[in-house]
Amino acid sequence: MSPPDYAKQGYKDIIVNLEDSILTILINRSKYRNTFTTSLHGDLVKVFELADLDDRVRVVIMTAEPSAPAYCSGADISGGWGSLWEEEADREGENAHRDSGGVLSMVIYRCRKLTIAAVNGHAAGVGMTAMQLPFDFRFAWSGAKLTFPFVRRGIVPEATSTFLLPRLIGSSRANSLLLTGATVSPESPHISALYHEILPTREAVYPAAKAFAQELAANTSQVSIAYSKGLIQHPGDSVEVNHLFDSRAMRLLGGSADGAEGVLSFKERRLPKFTGTLSKDSSPWYPWWKRIDVLHRKAKL
Amino acid sequence: MSPPDYAKQGYKDIIVNLEDSILTILINRSKYRNTFTTSLHGDLVKVFELADLDDRVRVVIMTAEPSAPAYCSGADISGGWGSLWEEEADREGENAHRDSGGVLSMVIYRCRKLTIAAVNGHAAGVGMTAMQLPFDFRFAWSGAKLTFPFVRRGIVPEATSTFLLPRLIGSSRANSLLLTGATVSPESPHISALYHEILPTREAVYPAAKAFAQELAANTSQVSIAYSKGLIQHPGDSVEVNHLFDSRAMRLLGGSADGAEGVLSFKERRLPKFTGTLSKDSSPWYPWWKRIDVLHRKAKL
Amino acid sequence: MSPPDYAKQGYKDIIVNLEDSILTILINRSKYRNTFTTSLHGDLVKVFELADLDDRVRVVIMTAEPSAPAYCSGADISGGWGSLWEEEADREGENAHRDSGGVLSMVIYRCRKLTIAAVNGHAAGVGMTAMQLPFDFRFAWSGAKLTFPFVRRGIVPEATSTFLLPRLIGSSRANSLLLTGATVSPESPHISALYHEILPTREAVYPAAKAFAQELAANTSQVSIAYSKGLIQHPGDSVEVNHLFDSRAMRLLGGSADGAEGVLSFKERRLPKFTGTLSKDSSPWYPWWKRIDVLHRKAKL
Repeated sequence: MSPPDYAKQGYKDIIVNLEDSILTILINRSKYRNTFTTSLHGDLVKVFELADLDDRVRVVIMTAEPSAPAYCSGADISGGWGSLWEEEADREGENAHRDSGGVLSMVIYRCRKLTIAAVNGHAAGVGMTAMQLPFDFRFAWSGAKLTFPFVRRGIVPEATSTFLLPRLIGSSRANSLLLTGATVSPESPHISALYHEILPTREAVYPAAKAFAQELAANTSQVSIAYSKGLIQHPGDSVEVNHLFDSRAMRLLGGSADGAEGVLSFKERRLPKFTGTLSKDSSPWYPWWKRIDVLHRKAKL
Repeated sequence: MSPPDYAKQGYKDIIVNLEDSILTILINRSKYRNTFTTSLHGDLVKVFELADLDDRVRVVIMTAEPSAPAYCSGADISGGWGSLWEEEADREGENAHRDSGGVLSMVIYRCRKLTIAAVNGHAAGVGMTAMQLPFDFRFAWSGAKLTFPFVRRGIVPEATSTFLLPRLIGSSRANSLLLTGATVSPESPHISALYHEILPTREAVYPAAKAFAQELAANTSQVSIAYSKGLIQHPGDSVEVNHLFDSRAMRLLGGSADGAEGVLSFKERRLPKFTGTLSKDSSPWYPWWKRIDVLHRKAKL
Repeated sequence: MSPPDYAKQGYKDIIVNLEDSILTILINRSKYRNTFTTSLHGDLVKVFELADLDDRVRVVIMTAEPSAPAYCSGADISGGWGSLWEEEADREGENAHRDSGGVLSMVIYRCRKLTIAAVNGHAAGVGMTAMQLPFDFRFAWSGAKLTFPFVRRGIVPEATSTFLLPRLIGSSRANSLLLTGATVSPESPHISALYHEILPTREAVYPAAKAFAQELAANTSQVSIAYSKGLIQHPGDSVEVNHLFDSRAMRLLGGSADGAEGVLSFKERRLPKFTGTLSKDSSPWYPWWKRIDVLHRKAKL
């Protein structure tokens, strides 16, 4: 793949910038409280798929303008839930609908680079689910109003949130959020474990995430990160199977140039300079899990 | 089902009251420290099965008299553990015993309404397991002495607690409770994540739970709650499968009257008035998981 | 099995002492920052296998000299990662490598006695994974510097840590540790849930762990502990299957001498005197899960 120019991808609702291996995605719908639309969804799916493949990208940060009224205030439901159904899927049957928040969640979850949600404003609905839960890390402004309002809107928590949230913070806290639709602050004991860092001002969130990203980009191995994310997301269903997986990953990466540099830099008491990339230094063994195809019938044709 | 009269069910060890869609179950064995007996077990199984089916019930709260010596001080073991074995199961073999705490746990866990344990006194054994863990939310008095004493009694944590507790608060904290039999306060870091809210006095616990219940009953959809609980309890074993489940639930509920009211009330900036009920507005798809039959052979005849 | 004499096992890198049913394992490589070597690995595997079988042992504590520069500063990588590969496995193929940290993790995880890591110094790499995560409880010195540095060394988190850590403290906190390689204090919100107790000085850690161990050894049943650990580690994949498991364990242990003593001591308001041991009072039903064989082909011959 030749390196893509993010400025020329024709994104409509995001502004994307690659700087020093950090790809920043700015949600660009401040005027509409950064609500989630088909068009924002399409932009985000595309940019995360690209970031996954682009070796230059080490960390992806998603954020909003600090002056925006919200980080993301949920789906645009001005047309009712019905505006979310695809005609073709609907003709196929009630089983064919695919929630767009979930499609995005899976793309972000599968991205092999480090991902950070820099939540510098209020967040609701899909702004809490797809726009936060599938990321590796979440940074938040302490004043953000956060809510999973689904049970107060006649629907259910979507975008794979009922899978991700209980795993992230335990089902006791997840119940307190998903089954109440309450609005909480990031410092509430119900949700604080979700955040890597909580910052006192909106303006402080992105710079903190960026500094964190730069340090990680400089000092971690791209291939190590991808395999480590794979092991955390697909650990196997027993300690024994996990042992088989991490043993094989250890043997592969321990025998790689990045593995050698890891040892050498440690011995020489200096920072490492990793050169491995996913396009040239992965292995046919990766991914070791089955990628489940969840497209509906027509979407596959 | 014609609406049941809870006052006429012949309960022996509980007092049940339905008020404004909140069903309150008062454990009525203060004289015996609210210990768990076959008769209390029978009453509780019956009332939770009824609450699950009764459309009028939105939230179930279980609590004790604030003046009782305990919320529930465990099983009545005056007759030894042997008093817990059913004769028939015992004739069938050691594999046929079914723990009564577990039977109750599963009935509460499966109840499609919101459930709250208002723990306004000390709790031990089954008072910590079946009487708390399968509930959606737990409120507690900060002075409550809480203990899972099983390893100090020659037995094991029962009532499906080894399944539920690690999922609720993580296995590090669960170990600190289940493998020590220690007595802790709700504010201990070992257990605090289990509680939605901790109150300073016994008397404050039920009113806090009731106010919380009333707000949820008024502003959430009965069908949404049932499906959301289903998704949290049966998320599927991968993010992809979860996506298929929540997509189908979104399509069903998004197309329902409650879904429409959710959008409309949001646009009109008013509180929603949901009218959907489980008896008329569920779907043959629910439940989407297999209900595993765990009765022993004779119990099935 | 005749009771082993721990002083005569020829351990090279550990000092082992059995006192009042508490087996203390002192890591004895202070000169080398207690780094993990093939020889330390061999000693630890052997002593945990022995402790599992020795009825006299109720609790195993692993610790270091408080004056040591570290509790365990990771694997000895002076010979590079390559020094970790077995020649025979390497001839067999890249799939045959078995990570030695993982082999140790599984031995500790399967030990049927209570296990405590008394972390009275800094810890890194395998010093965080195999030397801490498979234990039932962790005690730590508040000043300890803790790090999972794998992504900064070109490799991946090993020793089954990607299975164990997310289950212990949730995947949000696990990400903050495993995907950053950051150095944290035990009191950091990213890791504090991992520790049963955090002590202000290095010197206080082992005595606190020992007092805790003595109290548990005196007042819990050996058989109860083994079955409870089994239920927590192998709960079944649904609440129903867990109910079948804990019911059977309840029937077995409730009918045992320890079960009877549990009731009697409770009624007589005195501390229990349990006499059951795993060698004489377990059951053919235990273990109820399949022990997965993960040796590579040659290792089996």
